[in-house]
Amino acid sequence: MIKHLINGQRVDGGSRRADVFNPATGRVGNQVPLADRPTVEAAIAAAQAAFPAWRNTPPLKRARVMSRLKELLESNAERICQLITDEHGKVLADSLGELQRGIENVEYASYAPELLKGEHSRNVGPGIDAWSEHQALGVCVGITPFNFPAMVPLWMWPMAVACGNSFVLKPSERDPSSTLLIAELALEAGLPPGVLNVVHGDKEAVDTLLTDRRVQAVSFVGSTPIAEYIYSTGTAHGKRVQALGGAKNHAVVMPDADLDNTVSALMGAAFGSCGERCMAIPLVVAVGNATADALRERIVAEIAKMKVGPGTMAGCDMGPLVTKAHFDKVRGYVDQGVAEGATLVADGRTLKVAGHEEGYFLGPCLFDDVKPGMRIYQEEIFGPVLGIVRVESLEAAMQMIDAHEYGNGTCIFTRDGEAARHFTDHIQVGMVGVNVPLPVPVAYHSFGGWKRSLFGDLHAYGPDAVRFYTRRKQITQRWPSSGVRESAVFAFPSSK
Amino acid sequence: MIKHLINGQRVDGGSRRADVFNPATGRVGNQVPLADRPTVEAAIAAAQAAFPAWRNTPPLKRARVMSRLKELLESNAERICQLITDEHGKVLADSLGELQRGIENVEYASYAPELLKGEHSRNVGPGIDAWSEHQALGVCVGITPFNFPAMVPLWMWPMAVACGNSFVLKPSERDPSSTLLIAELALEAGLPPGVLNVVHGDKEAVDTLLTDRRVQAVSFVGSTPIAEYIYSTGTAHGKRVQALGGAKNHAVVMPDADLDNTVSALMGAAFGSCGERCMAIPLVVAVGNATADALRERIVAEIAKMKVGPGTMAGCDMGPLVTKAHFDKVRGYVDQGVAEGATLVADGRTLKVAGHEEGYFLGPCLFDDVKPGMRIYQEEIFGPVLGIVRVESLEAAMQMIDAHEYGNGTCIFTRDGEAARHFTDHIQVGMVGVNVPLPVPVAYHSFGGWKRSLFGDLHAYGPDAVRFYTRRKQITQRWPSSGVRESAVFAFPSSK
Amino acid sequence: MIKHLINGQRVDGGSRRADVFNPATGRVGNQVPLADRPTVEAAIAAAQAAFPAWRNTPPLKRARVMSRLKELLESNAERICQLITDEHGKVLADSLGELQRGIENVEYASYAPELLKGEHSRNVGPGIDAWSEHQALGVCVGITPFNFPAMVPLWMWPMAVACGNSFVLKPSERDPSSTLLIAELALEAGLPPGVLNVVHGDKEAVDTLLTDRRVQAVSFVGSTPIAEYIYSTGTAHGKRVQALGGAKNHAVVMPDADLDNTVSALMGAAFGSCGERCMAIPLVVAVGNATADALRERIVAEIAKMKVGPGTMAGCDMGPLVTKAHFDKVRGYVDQGVAEGATLVADGRTLKVAGHEEGYFLGPCLFDDVKPGMRIYQEEIFGPVLGIVRVESLEAAMQMIDAHEYGNGTCIFTRDGEAARHFTDHIQVGMVGVNVPLPVPVAYHSFGGWKRSLFGDLHAYGPDAVRFYTRRKQITQRWPSSGVRESAVFAFPSSK
Amino acid sequence: MIKHLINGQRVDGGSRRADVFNPATGRVGNQVPLADRPTVEAAIAAAQAAFPAWRNTPPLKRARVMSRLKELLESNAERICQLITDEHGKVLADSLGELQRGIENVEYASYAPELLKGEHSRNVGPGIDAWSEHQALGVCVGITPFNFPAMVPLWMWPMAVACGNSFVLKPSERDPSSTLLIAELALEAGLPPGVLNVVHGDKEAVDTLLTDRRVQAVSFVGSTPIAEYIYSTGTAHGKRVQALGGAKNHAVVMPDADLDNTVSALMGAAFGSCGERCMAIPLVVAVGNATADALRERIVAEIAKMKVGPGTMAGCDMGPLVTKAHFDKVRGYVDQGVAEGATLVADGRTLKVAGHEEGYFLGPCLFDDVKPGMRIYQEEIFGPVLGIVRVESLEAAMQMIDAHEYGNGTCIFTRDGEAARHFTDHIQVGMVGVNVPLPVPVAYHSFGGWKRSLFGDLHAYGPDAVRFYTRRKQITQRWPSSGVRESAVFAFPSSK
Repeated sequence: MIKHLINGQRVDGGSRRADVFNPATGRVGNQVPLADRPTVEAAIAAAQAAFPAWRNTPPLKRARVMSRLKELLESNAERICQLITDEHGKVLADSLGELQRGIENVEYASYAPELLKGEHSRNVGPGIDAWSEHQALGVCVGITPFNFPAMVPLWMWPMAVACGNSFVLKPSERDPSSTLLIAELALEAGLPPGVLNVVHGDKEAVDTLLTDRRVQAVSFVGSTPIAEYIYSTGTAHGKRVQALGGAKNHAVVMPDADLDNTVSALMGAAFGSCGERCMAIPLVVAVGNATADALRERIVAEIAKMKVGPGTMAGCDMGPLVTKAHFDKVRGYVDQGVAEGATLVADGRTLKVAGHEEGYFLGPCLFDDVKPGMRIYQEEIFGPVLGIVRVESLEAAMQMIDAHEYGNGTCIFTRDGEAARHFTDHIQVGMVGVNVPLPVPVAYHSFGGWKRSLFGDLHAYGPDAVRFYTRRKQITQRWPSSGVRESAVFAFPSSK
Repeated sequence: MIKHLINGQRVDGGSRRADVFNPATGRVGNQVPLADRPTVEAAIAAAQAAFPAWRNTPPLKRARVMSRLKELLESNAERICQLITDEHGKVLADSLGELQRGIENVEYASYAPELLKGEHSRNVGPGIDAWSEHQALGVCVGITPFNFPAMVPLWMWPMAVACGNSFVLKPSERDPSSTLLIAELALEAGLPPGVLNVVHGDKEAVDTLLTDRRVQAVSFVGSTPIAEYIYSTGTAHGKRVQALGGAKNHAVVMPDADLDNTVSALMGAAFGSCGERCMAIPLVVAVGNATADALRERIVAEIAKMKVGPGTMAGCDMGPLVTKAHFDKVRGYVDQGVAEGATLVADGRTLKVAGHEEGYFLGPCLFDDVKPGMRIYQEEIFGPVLGIVRVESLEAAMQMIDAHEYGNGTCIFTRDGEAARHFTDHIQVGMVGVNVPLPVPVAYHSFGGWKRSLFGDLHAYGPDAVRFYTRRKQITQRWPSSGVRESAVFAFPSSK
Repeated sequence: MIKHLINGQRVDGGSRRADVFNPATGRVGNQVPLADRPTVEAAIAAAQAAFPAWRNTPPLKRARVMSRLKELLESNAERICQLITDEHGKVLADSLGELQRGIENVEYASYAPELLKGEHSRNVGPGIDAWSEHQALGVCVGITPFNFPAMVPLWMWPMAVACGNSFVLKPSERDPSSTLLIAELALEAGLPPGVLNVVHGDKEAVDTLLTDRRVQAVSFVGSTPIAEYIYSTGTAHGKRVQALGGAKNHAVVMPDADLDNTVSALMGAAFGSCGERCMAIPLVVAVGNATADALRERIVAEIAKMKVGPGTMAGCDMGPLVTKAHFDKVRGYVDQGVAEGATLVADGRTLKVAGHEEGYFLGPCLFDDVKPGMRIYQEEIFGPVLGIVRVESLEAAMQMIDAHEYGNGTCIFTRDGEAARHFTDHIQVGMVGVNVPLPVPVAYHSFGGWKRSLFGDLHAYGPDAVRFYTRRKQITQRWPSSGVRESAVFAFPSSK
Repeated sequence: MIKHLINGQRVDGGSRRADVFNPATGRVGNQVPLADRPTVEAAIAAAQAAFPAWRNTPPLKRARVMSRLKELLESNAERICQLITDEHGKVLADSLGELQRGIENVEYASYAPELLKGEHSRNVGPGIDAWSEHQALGVCVGITPFNFPAMVPLWMWPMAVACGNSFVLKPSERDPSSTLLIAELALEAGLPPGVLNVVHGDKEAVDTLLTDRRVQAVSFVGSTPIAEYIYSTGTAHGKRVQALGGAKNHAVVMPDADLDNTVSALMGAAFGSCGERCMAIPLVVAVGNATADALRERIVAEIAKMKVGPGTMAGCDMGPLVTKAHFDKVRGYVDQGVAEGATLVADGRTLKVAGHEEGYFLGPCLFDDVKPGMRIYQEEIFGPVLGIVRVESLEAAMQMIDAHEYGNGTCIFTRDGEAARHFTDHIQVGMVGVNVPLPVPVAYHSFGGWKRSLFGDLHAYGPDAVRFYTRRKQITQRWPSSGVRESAVFAFPSSK
């Protein structure tokens, strides 16, 4: 059975259990304990105890633990990816992609000595100097979703601990094994016990983390309603919180776009990892009917070539959805779209994967004539369902995007410098791609949506994470003469 | 009567009124309208309407409005300070000091073109570039306290508007005239109507600002209970909030301190502006009884020399408290301290200022033997009451400070490099002075306390304010070949 | 007669004199003394003497002198521009444009408190802190050209003095009056005497400045042979030097360019200020013959509309060249181009300006079929002579540009994102415009060419100038315990 | 025989050879070829050929080669240190210390994606954006001294190649083996052939490197006369050059210094690596005679405990000098000091190391009463010779230091904040320690002296190295409407 990791020890904790399934087979693969309040408090206590010594460890030494972790993640990549695919379902190549992105965050955390530099000013007044420091907060918390069990936790705790904090991580209870393995590798890399703790759990664990006065900061990635709950609860308890929520990312395709590149890019963005990504593209906004017709024709042709099967099978483009419940929900959205009047051009509901009849497989689906107001337009489906929306102009596309509740990511396909500049400047979305379908920022920039896709001031990972996981201290200093310099005191050292 | 300033016009709004007193005479000097919800909404609407054009104005042009405002503040300084002193009571030199600090924030806002630079990375992948921008949020709000009617608003809106936002300011209704005059000077300096709006009011106005969905960000300075309310209410409504609350700043005096400098510094820090400053020093922690005895003796002697009277009278060191209610509250704390067993060494309660018998004057008070647990130790008095606490070591002083609810500012007086370093590194306080009694950071650094002195991630003014008043946008861009470069399309231009 | 400005005094110095002409009339307007070695040494001595106090003045105070200077430049703009036009010849609108650009540099220098921040690192080792400072150098020198008598000096000394240095400026002896007036306004703004000194002169003055051991740094803008001399002589005398030389900026016009915008942009870039700008565009590289033909036709039409006359006459687009010698040289290049086989499409040599027959007026000239190897292709003409070069592809254009000796500025006109990205990434030129004909960086970025257009590591103005005018100092600090903190020394203060 | 490393191949080159000695035995250990001009040119050509592809490699990939190199240096540390000790003579612990410092520079180079970020400004004018890039230069060169064969080369080429440059390294021909091994490990780590080349040689090689037009930048560390030659020759050939020269670092000991710490620190700083370090402390400036007397007594006692012997022998504190010639020179300085009238308190000239009679061993020497004007005060001895200088005040100490030709490093020992601040602010030295004897900046800050200790604007390694090894490119961009956005062109896509 999967365990908690508290103060460097694998422990049980809590009497409740949850099953962890293999979505490709529909069978239970493992069990995970759901932490009760005392267990979570023990993890917090371990983190609190480990904090002072770790905070005083020079940043360079902390950074080097991250460098060693990077090496261990590379040498253990196969093992980690197998666990991701077994529990999440995504194809192995996708697991590796996720891990690679996570490693880049570990790499960035290893730059801590550079990132933690404060600003120094000589002579802010006569004989007065001032400088700022970015000091560690104390115990930080991460609460992470099922869709990136390796990557999203690595957005959080490596930078938090590189900044001198200790950490309690509560990963998704649906696919916790890769997350846990990575935490154990961090100990192997030299992280002192207690600096990083992992507890599995559900609402009881989350609420304990959100209300314990020792917790200083909470990072969350998940759906918008939960993000909002996390943000308002955590902030009401005096913590700093960054809570990343849902998304409904639109790709705008201009008439001058290079359609070969565009369609190739969209296929991965819409159906990769079954669309279970907050940066997936579930909506293509085609500018002009000719653009829409051409896109539809090509996407249908590409869908026909896709291979769906277990994530461990070579050559598969797409695996199963993560759970039975999620499968039912996504399938229900497809039914809903038909009922709402969208044109279902490609229907993945009939897919059967031979030998995996109990797996949660849904084939790629394509709607045309999707319109604002439909639920399949408004809501985050988080499945392999792509919709084409037809508009007459870029301006119309932008108004539509700006009117949507979410503002996580978006992209434009065009060859035209002016269209791209206008779009990137004005669109009310946090991450914008130009001919890049999934504009997930590289690890040395920061990740964050706008509107109801993110609650908080500071974005995830990158430079913003350094600010989120530290507290500014401002020192102003002057030295009165003590006579030492002027030799007044020591002029006759014999008198000493 | 004082008016609101909405969309560049002086307007009434709301049927309720509040009196504005002259604290040196106890007489009503003016009246201020208390905005009802429709009035506040009109201000928000004006700000919302002014936003798009202002946001698109190049940062350099926005910055130049700040430069011109700086000039106008300098040329109107006398007029502004007279208004501050008339309504707040502080001595004119103090009003000028406050205004000067405020001007420095205007000056820093005029550096906007430098401060708004994003980070650009060529080749984050092959042929892919990425950069970040710090884009304006939209309508921002400031809610400010009575104690610095010129300075604290200038911490907020100049940077907010320099970053491209529009603003609604709700100053204290007790002394709003200088705040309003400054806003009018900003219009004169070239700020377009609607970019900065001022509404006066109380809870109705505040609650409207905190819940209106058009408001993106709220900056607050006031007491901790209100700060907490502002923070939890604003964040629950999806806004970013920075809420600065109360303080109880300790000055640690080491046995090796230069006592002449120390006492001179403490007198201003404790009694300047009647102690109505969140960076005032109401507690001196003397390390060693000899230090305490020497301090006490010298402070008593200095108190005897102080001159208290109307802020407009030449040579006064201290004016009246701001209101009758506040006078009663502060005086009650002195009674309380005596009751709690502290030694009242200097008693300002008996002070009478000839010709100003109705003014809210309280003389400087000094307690010795103040101890944690006493209300005069725990609570923010915000009056001219200084307490001496006796401890045996720096470590004991630091534990006491860290145990206090507040963590705004603190300072240490010593000649010793090691003591200073240990103190600044470890103390759980946001702003730390070394031989500097009021370590208010200069305008190009940031202001913020720790613990329950500040709610939010980002501090006030300086570099943090740039981040608070902007939202990160992250762009990732690649360009597919269109044949233009390779001459494929245009090789035979005649065919075009 | 024009004077030197040394230690705040207008003084003579040197027995030699030079005439200053009005190029629109060909008449002598004034005389300028040419400083001998003792005069220059007196200026250096004044700067050296002023340095210590100025260096110790807080950066904020130094910055405020720049703010006040900005105000004075704005209020004296008309007077300054009249002097520029009288001595240089450019039209008044152009003088104002130059001054405005210069003011932006003064503005940027006023950000000094922000720009001078060093980097602070706590705990580089256990108990060890480190930080960097950017300290002033001492006496800095600027040697500036005739073509921007207001702007180019303002690239240099405002930032130098804002960083805490003192300065000796040697402006062009052909049009020194506006330069001198600005220096006097700086004194009026509060710059202490001796911090900025102006000496007029020729090689004797230059050589004194380059070899005096008290001079720490030299900034130069002029022709490449002189730049090279300045750089090798100054560096051989142990100084840091930045020497900006000549240019031959190519504008590449792609077949997809918006020709209306392009031609409008090129007219100003080629003929503005008679082409006497190091960022002027003397060469248009047309990609494809159709592009070339269309450009030629439109440029010829635009040239026909141009009005050439004295700079003070309303409505003139172009004034005279700066001196008779320069007029002869530029005219000789036109003759040379014809001899070399280029096609002279528009011939400005025959121009006569009624009532100004002795003025140095040359009309706009356009060559077609200009080719590498011709002197009019290789050499900097610095006159109103534009050449069209015909190439078949962007690649060919870029190879040509990269093969040229100079690499100051260049630009591309296109609507295509990919072409622009390829060009900006790979071209061996320091300042690159995309649909911007004169990509002179704004004041908060830095100005500098590549190849033989700049000698030195750091570019002019902007962030690079802060580094050029300061010297990094690196401090590493630890404090041994003295017993003060542990109360060992003072536990029984009575024993003291 | 030791080889050159050109284009990934070990090659001979040049007919001349030099002996490489083991200084502990005085015997020849190996031979090294001295490159002639064609060999050096082949290395430059290889670097030039490797440049374009490497420059286009994303910074993250280049950085990862540095991460892997770091791992290889750690796993090969023993082998590298053995080579250092065999050829240089320093004790193994010292070799390891050197290597560790070098690894930190490799680590810092691995932060390249962060360090190479440019500045991006939206709307520098209406619709106009601007950004800066730090682009690679091309072929860079390093010329390094014998005293740190591992560390000093690692100051240079890792950052240079991480920035996208290719490199030709000419290490000291006296101890080149460790340098070469490290270069080979870089290839193993994934550096493409030709990106890093190593040539051994003397003046012929150096002059080729300094004059070849393909070389863009030269970094040098060595003595001041050579540094000056490198700087003036390189700059006269249009290259950017940073040339670090000699040092004579003073340690000021104040009367209040903690003498135990001070003496312990000084012993290592004076005698570590036989004083063959540009950051060694050869001069102690004692403030007050009592301080001097106490220091002298304690240092003599510590010298008596020192163990001198072969660097490979366990427990040795100091090994031999690097060559016979250098031994003679240092010994001559001791004779000279006696002749000049300094008091030789400890005489290392008589030392014999049993079994190593031919080794270049000199025992630690201590002079008292050293005075400015003596050659042992003015000149860099680069040997185990420490001198005590007696002064009456800090001011006198500082005047002495500022009057010295060199300004590399210095330090002050005191407990007093004010003395330290005054010293660090005003002393004319580039690297300053407070109670830190060898204030070598950590790798994430920069290394550089002032006065005649460094020629050039930018310091070695750290942030300055990023600027030195890149060239600023400034792009200004606007996009004219092409009708794509407004749908003008594509409104009727059928017409396409």
